[in-house]
Amino acid sequence: MITFKEAFQKVLDHPLDLGIEIVSLIDSLNRILAEDIFADRDFPPFDRATKDGIAIQYSTLVNDGHTFAIEGEAAAGGVQQVLNDKNNCLEVMTGAVVPEHCDTVVMYEHITIDGGKVTINEKVTKGQNIHYQGSDEKVGTLLLSKGKKISPAEIGVMATVGKAIVKVMGNPKICTIATGNELVAVNETPEPHQIRKSNMLTIESALLNSKIEASSLHLLDDKKEIERELKKALIENDVLLLSGGVSKGKFDFIPEVMESLGVEKVFHRVLQRPGKPFWFGIHPELKTVIFSFPGNPVSTFANYHLYFLPWLQTSWQLPLDNSYIKLSRGIKITRPLTRFIQVSTEVKEGMFWATPVVENGSGDLTSLAKADGFICLEPRTEEYEVGEVIPFIKTR
Amino acid sequence: MITFKEAFQKVLDHPLDLGIEIVSLIDSLNRILAEDIFADRDFPPFDRATKDGIAIQYSTLVNDGHTFAIEGEAAAGGVQQVLNDKNNCLEVMTGAVVPEHCDTVVMYEHITIDGGKVTINEKVTKGQNIHYQGSDEKVGTLLLSKGKKISPAEIGVMATVGKAIVKVMGNPKICTIATGNELVAVNETPEPHQIRKSNMLTIESALLNSKIEASSLHLLDDKKEIERELKKALIENDVLLLSGGVSKGKFDFIPEVMESLGVEKVFHRVLQRPGKPFWFGIHPELKTVIFSFPGNPVSTFANYHLYFLPWLQTSWQLPLDNSYIKLSRGIKITRPLTRFIQVSTEVKEGMFWATPVVENGSGDLTSLAKADGFICLEPRTEEYEVGEVIPFIKTR
Repeated sequence: MITFKEAFQKVLDHPLDLGIEIVSLIDSLNRILAEDIFADRDFPPFDRATKDGIAIQYSTLVNDGHTFAIEGEAAAGGVQQVLNDKNNCLEVMTGAVVPEHCDTVVMYEHITIDGGKVTINEKVTKGQNIHYQGSDEKVGTLLLSKGKKISPAEIGVMATVGKAIVKVMGNPKICTIATGNELVAVNETPEPHQIRKSNMLTIESALLNSKIEASSLHLLDDKKEIERELKKALIENDVLLLSGGVSKGKFDFIPEVMESLGVEKVFHRVLQRPGKPFWFGIHPELKTVIFSFPGNPVSTFANYHLYFLPWLQTSWQLPLDNSYIKLSRGIKITRPLTRFIQVSTEVKEGMFWATPVVENGSGDLTSLAKADGFICLEPRTEEYEVGEVIPFIKTR
Repeated sequence: MITFKEAFQKVLDHPLDLGIEIVSLIDSLNRILAEDIFADRDFPPFDRATKDGIAIQYSTLVNDGHTFAIEGEAAAGGVQQVLNDKNNCLEVMTGAVVPEHCDTVVMYEHITIDGGKVTINEKVTKGQNIHYQGSDEKVGTLLLSKGKKISPAEIGVMATVGKAIVKVMGNPKICTIATGNELVAVNETPEPHQIRKSNMLTIESALLNSKIEASSLHLLDDKKEIERELKKALIENDVLLLSGGVSKGKFDFIPEVMESLGVEKVFHRVLQRPGKPFWFGIHPELKTVIFSFPGNPVSTFANYHLYFLPWLQTSWQLPLDNSYIKLSRGIKITRPLTRFIQVSTEVKEGMFWATPVVENGSGDLTSLAKADGFICLEPRTEEYEVGEVIPFIKTR
């Protein structure tokens, strides 16, 4: 058996080149940007009025008590207007181009209009209420870098610079595979010795949160069927995510069949709890990567977050998440296994706290619904103390 | 003008009853659960072997050096087997029902099999390696409560108890409406005085993150068209989200047209920055709720998070999020406006820190892509100090 640290590194040593996909702007939401985004023009693209009111030439104001005749108006979305007589003004709307020969905007709240003549009632500063061309960003400036996760804010930036289609990191083609005769479909009523197929639905929905739509299979404990279906799945997919069939049982055919199909075992069994009987392999010719998780819900869920997601980040050429959290109660870990303990989290007074969830072994699915993630504890002689800062893997 | 606190309360005072939708299990991901979920059977539903090995009757072990003949085997997914002779054993696989008359499981690693006879090589504890029926949850136990956001873990729990279809909180029917002649589509090349329509794409993608698909409209600065289109939109939707047209400009028809269509203004303009010219109203007969945001990107984005999302939480009968964060540098707020400042965030040593993003006024869209949220600062004489804990509104 190898340590968690070794197993983790071996998984990261086998990334895939997932290529690039081109998607519509709205479909790029929550994907990873695969190109740099530049300003296609200055922002703002023109000297822009930021208030509704009048535009004037500031120098005219040296004549105290001057009133301005209104020459016309400049609306948002209209071409730039021209002030013909510097003693006059133009009405101007928020978002409009500041008219030629004007350098200052005075808002309606600070003027009086009487018979087409404007009197200014407040102190004016030269250049006020103008958002100058290029003052946010100059044309050609890098706005968003490759590798950024696209949130609504990035959608807005890309819309502004005209990116109607966007290059994003490619998704792996994934098949999730449940194994075992004991499994029945969610809408079936199980016999007393059967259970419903829940594990891979959890994983499929977790994949959807990474915007990946996976296909799925259920294999019975029949070596011939497993062989036939796995052979096809290996060819058709970049990644197989399996659950069950990797223990030491008589019907745990997966490792044997995998190897007969040319898959190279990278490792099997890791000094960790939960998730110990994890099997990881690759097919050197087909380049398929196989994550074969133990069959119980907490183990599968843990290993998906511990191994698969960091593998995906690495394949997308992203840095790994490194989260830390404070422990709200002491824990002793002496057995020589890396422990992943389910915790609920809370931000209190700007501090991020983890409290272990009461669980009943790795078969206890319902504990997952009480947890927000796992903390990672290496074995050591001294107890982990209240307030200690430890690695945290978010699952919600 | 009213204060932010007053405006916020007035918005929350107008929730909608959004009803309940019934969706397939996988489509319930990231929705809000609208029913309680109970265990439909004990979990585990039977005494379940947790290791591959043999099942025995513990009392037989009083005879030191006893060897067990193998009577047969119990596979996962098979009906319960019976041990006929208590001096014998049955092979048993992980996930199988523990056979009748057996009370202990010994794993393969701890036994030797020779000529159909099993010798046990390690100390055995009565009841070991059995996950007892109902030890996780008893039939009828409440597993998930109404009001919970459905993550992959909840999908797994619901799959386990056979919820193939799920009741979730209903979504409002929403139309997002951009206004202004200066706007052109994302795939168009704007004239110098035009800009691309980015604002409402930001909002539409933010809505998608709440699993709401909105329709959209673009209205030109034409009072007749605005009247005609808004009338239709008020009838067809639960919520209108508008951007632009609520300032004091000559073409800012929205408030006037809304009132002519029977919409009651609840308030217009709030003592806050950004987002001051926010207009909020309701149609008392049609029950339509109208959020009319100022036209610039940061204002719209801020007000969406400050008002619309809490309104949605309230309509879904959920408690409001209350997040706090530590300030990484001092800030002075003396003008009598509630300030929302864009910040980037970082978890360092288990503490959650906010650093203000350099921005250039509320027209600066690109600052949004640098920020993770807003901090909320009320005006006060003393400076907000480094390390102070302040309210935080997450936007990413």
